[in-house]
Amino acid sequence: MRLSHLFTKTQRNYPKDEISKNAQLLIRGGFIYKEMAGVYDLLPLGLRVVKKIMNIVRKEMDEIGGQEVSMTALQNKSLWEKTGRWSDKEVNIWFKSHLKDSKEIGLSWSHEEPMTRMIKQFLSSYADLPIYVYQFQTKFRNELRSKSGILRGREFLMKDLYSFNATEEKLDEFYEKVKGAYFKIFKKVGLKDKTFLTFASGGAFSKYSHEFQTICEVGEDIIYLDEEKKIAVNKEIYSPRILKELELREKKLKKLRAIEVGNIFKLGTRYSKALNLTYINKKGEEKLVVMGSYGIGIGRLMGTVVELFSDEKGIIWPLSISPYLVHLIVLKGGDKKLFERSEKIYNTLTQLKVEVLYDDREKSPGEKLKDADLIGLPIRLIISDKTGEKIEWKERNKENTILLTPDEVIKRIKLYEKNSNSYLG
Amino acid sequence: MRLSHLFTKTQRNYPKDEISKNAQLLIRGGFIYKEMAGVYDLLPLGLRVVKKIMNIVRKEMDEIGGQEVSMTALQNKSLWEKTGRWSDKEVNIWFKSHLKDSKEIGLSWSHEEPMTRMIKQFLSSYADLPIYVYQFQTKFRNELRSKSGILRGREFLMKDLYSFNATEEKLDEFYEKVKGAYFKIFKKVGLKDKTFLTFASGGAFSKYSHEFQTICEVGEDIIYLDEEKKIAVNKEIYSPRILKELELREKKLKKLRAIEVGNIFKLGTRYSKALNLTYINKKGEEKLVVMGSYGIGIGRLMGTVVELFSDEKGIIWPLSISPYLVHLIVLKGGDKKLFERSEKIYNTLTQLKVEVLYDDREKSPGEKLKDADLIGLPIRLIISDKTGEKIEWKERNKENTILLTPDEVIKRIKLYEKNSNSYLG
Repeated sequence: MRLSHLFTKTQRNYPKDEISKNAQLLIRGGFIYKEMAGVYDLLPLGLRVVKKIMNIVRKEMDEIGGQEVSMTALQNKSLWEKTGRWSDKEVNIWFKSHLKDSKEIGLSWSHEEPMTRMIKQFLSSYADLPIYVYQFQTKFRNELRSKSGILRGREFLMKDLYSFNATEEKLDEFYEKVKGAYFKIFKKVGLKDKTFLTFASGGAFSKYSHEFQTICEVGEDIIYLDEEKKIAVNKEIYSPRILKELELREKKLKKLRAIEVGNIFKLGTRYSKALNLTYINKKGEEKLVVMGSYGIGIGRLMGTVVELFSDEKGIIWPLSISPYLVHLIVLKGGDKKLFERSEKIYNTLTQLKVEVLYDDREKSPGEKLKDADLIGLPIRLIISDKTGEKIEWKERNKENTILLTPDEVIKRIKLYEKNSNSYLG
Repeated sequence: MRLSHLFTKTQRNYPKDEISKNAQLLIRGGFIYKEMAGVYDLLPLGLRVVKKIMNIVRKEMDEIGGQEVSMTALQNKSLWEKTGRWSDKEVNIWFKSHLKDSKEIGLSWSHEEPMTRMIKQFLSSYADLPIYVYQFQTKFRNELRSKSGILRGREFLMKDLYSFNATEEKLDEFYEKVKGAYFKIFKKVGLKDKTFLTFASGGAFSKYSHEFQTICEVGEDIIYLDEEKKIAVNKEIYSPRILKELELREKKLKKLRAIEVGNIFKLGTRYSKALNLTYINKKGEEKLVVMGSYGIGIGRLMGTVVELFSDEKGIIWPLSISPYLVHLIVLKGGDKKLFERSEKIYNTLTQLKVEVLYDDREKSPGEKLKDADLIGLPIRLIISDKTGEKIEWKERNKENTILLTPDEVIKRIKLYEKNSNSYLG
């Protein structure tokens, strides 16, 4: 993609009410546009990041047997009344509206109810189980305040997976599989070292749920982390009794701020009972289905990466979710052939399927370099009067630059992609 | 994909209030699930069709220079007031709700206003133009009635493209390009022969807009078609004066029902004026940007295909958007090796990247064949006691069957994909 063609531009400024670093950097870099507090459009660069995150998540969901669907935002009042979750007293983040015939409807803030009802249509016998269904869908949550940028949106994209099993044992098995899949996902997007399985409050069915908490000073959650055991406890359930149960010692725990990047929850029969989702077992008996739900906020994941991987100059994207791999810059000088050379390199790289953002604009060197740092692609290549026939190579997270021939650049890109497989794990 | 694994099942029944053929067939085949009138979930098979349609549309949008974004559903009251489109009197299909601080918000039924405001941030000089931006986004329209299945949803996926040009001439040029792109899209999904450019009412800026109307007896629109000239007039503007202007003769026109599968509209300066979207021209003067908008309803396109390509047995998918290419069926008999053979063929085809839906279930031949006809994939392959070492080949839209060796099947699939390039052309 040529920067002269990309309609977005980097900005020095951001809306005055935007106090979060993630949104400030993403707005300045041209990744998102703020519609209102907690409500952001995805611009071309931001949409590319989100699509890459979605592909990483989709692959892992498919791997553990998930089947993708897409449910609606408009929600049925009578359905949610059956589980007691329609009431604003019970759930205080509903957006509600009404149809022309004045029937009330709500906007999806989660999908347990419609998912359970939909599965009912296709489920009769034990032979139909297990069923694992996921989606990427917009959630609407009417938050009182929304000051954390894309970490807590009023409208945001979420991957939610729901599991339907015959027994608790089968649920437990799948639950462990999801844990594994989630750690793979967080590893791929570069967050693994800072992300810890965290015990949080459960429900009627299971004592605990589990969160995936990424250590970050702007996180809204507080966790107590045992670094050796790589396990944490959310402040909301922190107590001597719980520590004893989990065999954790107070002295060994660090109190830290963290962002909840994922959560997994054993729902048990809470929803299958309320909505009568049953199956016939081998003995011919009618049994309630045992459920689980598993979420990852896609936008929040992007925001967390930006909070953790950035410096005073801008974002530092991990290879796996960077909108492009290479930021190619031509610095206009006296030499007319400079432009021809950079065009040739752009075309060669593009033909080799290397994702290149190409700064072919009539801008000063200073502006171009500043933009490259702000946008934050992993590799920066510069062609200028100074580089002669060679190309200057610099990685966003390193200081040193080197001069390479075009052939060496191509070899090094291949090597870079290979070595960066730590992300791609 | 194995049918024993796919969680959806075909149904004999559909909701009583569902009177449209497209939704009846799609519900029965397990493509969609009805949440309420005009509000449908996409199940795995339906989501695959929608993704294929999106890819076809995306390719053509990119081809004409479109850049993809994703804007939000939640809409700002004060923004829409500026164009006079917030009022329910002016726009009678709004869903509205409010934030916790009681500020009103609306759900996006179109995106001219936020798109225009967003572009404002990135536009200053003539050198920034043209800008073409598109998205696939959910629209919410509070229709009084919604009885046409997925042809008229209250919540539906739309591709909307917006163009920003310096002059009317440039808009006109791009408008013609979009016409071409739209016909390519309708050709690829198999609708070209029945889809006609139709003159419809314009706005303050241009006398006409253009619709792409697909002839279909359940269509909500009535058009007057000149089959020779391949041009139609929407009933809403049909008059002797208009016929004269368009050089059409009443005698030559056929009055027909049709579905509006796309529309293109010259907005002119309607929104740029209201929202002050200007640029500085070469002479240093401030000028209003000239806009256009271009829509295709993705779900409606799927529904139109189902209305037109189906018979009493079920759907007949065009290759280009069929959820899978091959429906492989093993009919269990006495021969134990039958199952081994079908597994082998399934694995071979899958390795060759042929998209196969494999009916490996313990079901009667009658049920399996009925399901294949209902789901409607282009090619049906049967392995049974009767076929010996061979495989029975039948195409969904043909009556005859032939016996082929596994190698011949593979060759024929390649040939089929090649010949069906009429869709892909």
